[in-house]
Amino acid sequence: MKNFLDQDFLLQTKTAQQLYHEYAAAMPIIDYHNHLPPAEIAGNKQFSSMTEIWLKGDHYKWRAMRTRGIAENDITGNADDYTKFKVWAETVPYTMRNPLYHWTHLELKTPFGITELLNADTAEAIYKKCNEQLSSLRVHNILKQFNVQALCTTDDPADNLEHHLAIKQSDAGLKVFPAFRPDKSMAVEDPESYNQYLDRLSATSNTVIDSYQALLDALKNRHDFFHEAGCRISDHGLETIYAEDFTLAELAESFRKVRKGEQLGEQSVRQFKSATLHFICEWNAVRGWAQQFHIGALRNNNSRLLAQLGADAGVDSIGDWRVAEPMSKFFNRLDKNNRLAKTIIYNNNPSHNAIYATMVGNFQGEDIPGKIQYGSGWWFLDQKDGMEQQMNTLSNMGLLSLFIGMTTDSRSFLSFPRHEYFRRILCNLIGNDVENGELPHDIKWLGKIVQDICYNNAKRYFNLQ
Amino acid sequence: MKNFLDQDFLLQTKTAQQLYHEYAAAMPIIDYHNHLPPAEIAGNKQFSSMTEIWLKGDHYKWRAMRTRGIAENDITGNADDYTKFKVWAETVPYTMRNPLYHWTHLELKTPFGITELLNADTAEAIYKKCNEQLSSLRVHNILKQFNVQALCTTDDPADNLEHHLAIKQSDAGLKVFPAFRPDKSMAVEDPESYNQYLDRLSATSNTVIDSYQALLDALKNRHDFFHEAGCRISDHGLETIYAEDFTLAELAESFRKVRKGEQLGEQSVRQFKSATLHFICEWNAVRGWAQQFHIGALRNNNSRLLAQLGADAGVDSIGDWRVAEPMSKFFNRLDKNNRLAKTIIYNNNPSHNAIYATMVGNFQGEDIPGKIQYGSGWWFLDQKDGMEQQMNTLSNMGLLSLFIGMTTDSRSFLSFPRHEYFRRILCNLIGNDVENGELPHDIKWLGKIVQDICYNNAKRYFNLQ
Amino acid sequence: MKNFLDQDFLLQTKTAQQLYHEYAAAMPIIDYHNHLPPAEIAGNKQFSSMTEIWLKGDHYKWRAMRTRGIAENDITGNADDYTKFKVWAETVPYTMRNPLYHWTHLELKTPFGITELLNADTAEAIYKKCNEQLSSLRVHNILKQFNVQALCTTDDPADNLEHHLAIKQSDAGLKVFPAFRPDKSMAVEDPESYNQYLDRLSATSNTVIDSYQALLDALKNRHDFFHEAGCRISDHGLETIYAEDFTLAELAESFRKVRKGEQLGEQSVRQFKSATLHFICEWNAVRGWAQQFHIGALRNNNSRLLAQLGADAGVDSIGDWRVAEPMSKFFNRLDKNNRLAKTIIYNNNPSHNAIYATMVGNFQGEDIPGKIQYGSGWWFLDQKDGMEQQMNTLSNMGLLSLFIGMTTDSRSFLSFPRHEYFRRILCNLIGNDVENGELPHDIKWLGKIVQDICYNNAKRYFNLQ
Repeated sequence: MKNFLDQDFLLQTKTAQQLYHEYAAAMPIIDYHNHLPPAEIAGNKQFSSMTEIWLKGDHYKWRAMRTRGIAENDITGNADDYTKFKVWAETVPYTMRNPLYHWTHLELKTPFGITELLNADTAEAIYKKCNEQLSSLRVHNILKQFNVQALCTTDDPADNLEHHLAIKQSDAGLKVFPAFRPDKSMAVEDPESYNQYLDRLSATSNTVIDSYQALLDALKNRHDFFHEAGCRISDHGLETIYAEDFTLAELAESFRKVRKGEQLGEQSVRQFKSATLHFICEWNAVRGWAQQFHIGALRNNNSRLLAQLGADAGVDSIGDWRVAEPMSKFFNRLDKNNRLAKTIIYNNNPSHNAIYATMVGNFQGEDIPGKIQYGSGWWFLDQKDGMEQQMNTLSNMGLLSLFIGMTTDSRSFLSFPRHEYFRRILCNLIGNDVENGELPHDIKWLGKIVQDICYNNAKRYFNLQ
Repeated sequence: MKNFLDQDFLLQTKTAQQLYHEYAAAMPIIDYHNHLPPAEIAGNKQFSSMTEIWLKGDHYKWRAMRTRGIAENDITGNADDYTKFKVWAETVPYTMRNPLYHWTHLELKTPFGITELLNADTAEAIYKKCNEQLSSLRVHNILKQFNVQALCTTDDPADNLEHHLAIKQSDAGLKVFPAFRPDKSMAVEDPESYNQYLDRLSATSNTVIDSYQALLDALKNRHDFFHEAGCRISDHGLETIYAEDFTLAELAESFRKVRKGEQLGEQSVRQFKSATLHFICEWNAVRGWAQQFHIGALRNNNSRLLAQLGADAGVDSIGDWRVAEPMSKFFNRLDKNNRLAKTIIYNNNPSHNAIYATMVGNFQGEDIPGKIQYGSGWWFLDQKDGMEQQMNTLSNMGLLSLFIGMTTDSRSFLSFPRHEYFRRILCNLIGNDVENGELPHDIKWLGKIVQDICYNNAKRYFNLQ
Repeated sequence: MKNFLDQDFLLQTKTAQQLYHEYAAAMPIIDYHNHLPPAEIAGNKQFSSMTEIWLKGDHYKWRAMRTRGIAENDITGNADDYTKFKVWAETVPYTMRNPLYHWTHLELKTPFGITELLNADTAEAIYKKCNEQLSSLRVHNILKQFNVQALCTTDDPADNLEHHLAIKQSDAGLKVFPAFRPDKSMAVEDPESYNQYLDRLSATSNTVIDSYQALLDALKNRHDFFHEAGCRISDHGLETIYAEDFTLAELAESFRKVRKGEQLGEQSVRQFKSATLHFICEWNAVRGWAQQFHIGALRNNNSRLLAQLGADAGVDSIGDWRVAEPMSKFFNRLDKNNRLAKTIIYNNNPSHNAIYATMVGNFQGEDIPGKIQYGSGWWFLDQKDGMEQQMNTLSNMGLLSLFIGMTTDSRSFLSFPRHEYFRRILCNLIGNDVENGELPHDIKWLGKIVQDICYNNAKRYFNLQ
């Protein structure tokens, strides 16, 4: 019987252990997509308690506590920090077999060095021990401790990137890059908030946005600005990829309507999104950026909690929109004009894995190994089974060897052990194949592949400066 | 090599064996959803032969025999009982790897104590041996032998529940409850049979059903009556959850048309079902019932066999309707008015597992642990792989620890070993995790979780009196 | 640790090894669906190099090389044969965990006897060694070496079958049969190429095709001709099964429009395909043929490569059309008139596996064991995981024991080791079950089942003369 969470955690064979300890473990981390707040990086934030750094923004944990019937007041409400921590600690044993159980104990282990299990009995001692350490564990220290070499945040075009510029000019030696996330610039389904957004974009870009062309100009202006600031990635959250036909006249007309506060029809909304995304993707190609599509989340299902807490309240789930034909049309429209940038597609619905894994094979490009990537297990799929399924599907239907690997997509500075988790799972899959006689026992070659997937492929692919 | 079907059947590790034998095996059964005939329970029925109790209503077995090309006459037709049994016995070896193979031998073992394999050679002896025992194995004895503490049948609102009332008044000490299954009260797509149904409902509820409001009144009348009779569960068989908008005026108009025998358009049918289901679910919430949705079966595909045998002829399969958005809308409409009852959603299409497992997390409620449940592997998914996938998906995306576990959904009094089957599979999953170092080796805690899933969670959740 | 690709490759248990070596390995091959060129069989073709026989038509390999960023010129372009081979050899190590890695080394082992791994270092020596052998390895020899007892190609109704007739009349003793693939006779979505096609069909069938009825007559004429030539299988490549209602008047009108070069609406296209497929399936039933449906491929996604290379360029992927309801309607319409032929449905989208596995159970027929088959893992699913999932789903929801097993669907004479691959995987699944105590240790019975699935079931099912 293996011990829980020892040094060979998840490594079921000698080959897996060798691959992980000798090849994977020491590789630096490039976390090319997450939601870490640039202000907290720039300010080298110090956290007041484990509750602040660990529970405050973590909708995964909120969902688990809600499932236990815990009162919202103790989760996101007015309860004091220790009460919230205690409630979480009591919940942890009930999360057995959920990734939260592994994440929790991996995150207590690194950076806090705690190997006790968290539960009602250990809550108080662990809370104290962590809080003590947090006084010296500011953001920069955490990043160093996790060997984070580079990271990319998620930023709105209307953002002035002040914190990114501050990080760049500081002498902390951090490689922190913005990513261009223009979702709000396409969200015409709600004219009121859309017009408010355009006001913000107008201000930041210092342009008058009075036509569809002016919108494109403002966005292109910000795209250029982001490029200057070191951005090399755009990122997009979509239900499915829309690929409607459009004419500039139709877009101009839709824009006029929305600007007057009128509601567009469903088809016009889709057309507007299709077109705007298409134009941004053309800029990505010209600039040599990579573009990421996060596809398939059904968001904000619970209007009660949405009203109470806003978006990202932990009331999102998995959608079942059709994806194959529009994705094909969208990519082909770009590819046939030589405007398909490096692309990563992330899937939230595991029954679509095979669609994604085979779609990428249609549009690969000369000179860029793995140009079109089927991205790592995302959100609800960011767990052991989800990762294994993503890697197995990619292996069976594409080339795992060219995979750019893991990114946390997290809002928490304590989530970097998910790279360790991913690497152990990767080494274990390959180790099993070797010991089952399904791969040759060529550790040198496989060690190289492992290091490529953990680090080298992403480094080459993004080429962040 | 493990022996087939020995005491450690499906228990691949020592930990699994310990969890099963020391914690799971002795727990009573609460079979909270099945299709057992109340009349046969009330009458403590004695069966004339294994063919009657085992083959007569079992469309799983019929499908297997048809796949072998057996003549319908020997399956559901005029062949004598022994011929039918013989044909089934010959088929059994061909069901290797199908759940029927395991079910068959589990059911011969308990209650009949037969450990020989059933096939052409053993058919005659086994038939005799079982038939002999059936003379003393009446329904009440069977339930006791399987340690069935409570069970819930499936009953139409137009049913007068006479057999349930008889059971309640008898001194047999059985906890048998009705469940409210109003599917027919929404089946407006066939005006002729719908009007016949309303006549029956009208008679039982002693009301005139001459308007949509009168229909609701009649159903509410029956809902109250069922509650008085101990019912605490409603049950619904649906292709997908319909969640159309509606007005009372539209419903009234649709009702008038159907009552005149007119065919409604597709959209009006969906609207009628959406609304009626919504109102019933409101009553469920007020009464504190649990509601079950069985979603995704594509029924009655073969019109030849449907005409010959009626519904449940074994010609149903798995549908692929979209489910995520309408389910979200339906639950949210109830939740935002504080009218979302305890809810269990069962899925028939395994590629939708993740949608269900994440949907339940959007609508959990304070004070009721596991208020919204992703139900056990249903129908075609009621087999080892299907159960493992359901439990793994639930584990990865929710809390397995609060799962209310197994129910047979069966039409046969011999199906209770499926609880044993489920429990072995559950213990085996957890045992593997422990021995792989993915869970701590804390048998006491894990034993409690196992007992919760096998029995305690359902007992607390349904609170049947 | 098992050695890579030794005699017990993929056979993880003693039972699996026994089943494979004593029962499966020696069975002849009936490859009932492939795309081998009849002309090359008739001509007993000799290949000029490994590049010609191995890389020229293999879009699986092309995709892998494109994913590495290799220039198209070195894949399908003007590069010389050795350059192309070298580029492939360099790619092979990067295909680790992809079926290409196993296929490559299985195909070098048989028929070439090469057990070295192919990579940049070994490329030259292996190229030479294979080319030398190719001088004596003509097509007929290859088929003999693989123990191919019968094979069925894929032929258009407009084909005159001259090569098939030549094979039949030759004294080579080959059992090679045509299969009737009328996809082009329904492809009315492109009037220009459709009319060109009808000219070809008109010429071969020696009829004037000036009405929809005349089209049916021409096709029926070819169906009869194919039957005379030994054809017993029709084959159909479909996005999903269309099952629209139709009248002969509507079809006649659609036909007139297309003949005048007019574009049909989407609905009329679907209707035309629905009807024509229905009529052909009726003929199949009357003739006692088997019909195969290959469903779910999203083809020709990349218009740049399509223009450059034509169809089958390796730019196809997996679609997500809805399949359950139309398939049910289509089969039921035939079945209720007693015109449902033996049918095999192949699925390209693994999330639809359960739909297919349960659909076949609705329409089985008396006297033909396994009349409706859920076919072997197809295209992107033709790999170890895909096969295991197909066989596990079939086992759980139908009868694996009556499965007609593997076919290559390949364009290459070197693909027959995929039967070995399939057989090893099959034996391994059953072996695991036995050693886990999930099946009785009855080697004789299980060996018979294995032989049935490898050979006997297909022999009985197709009854090729």
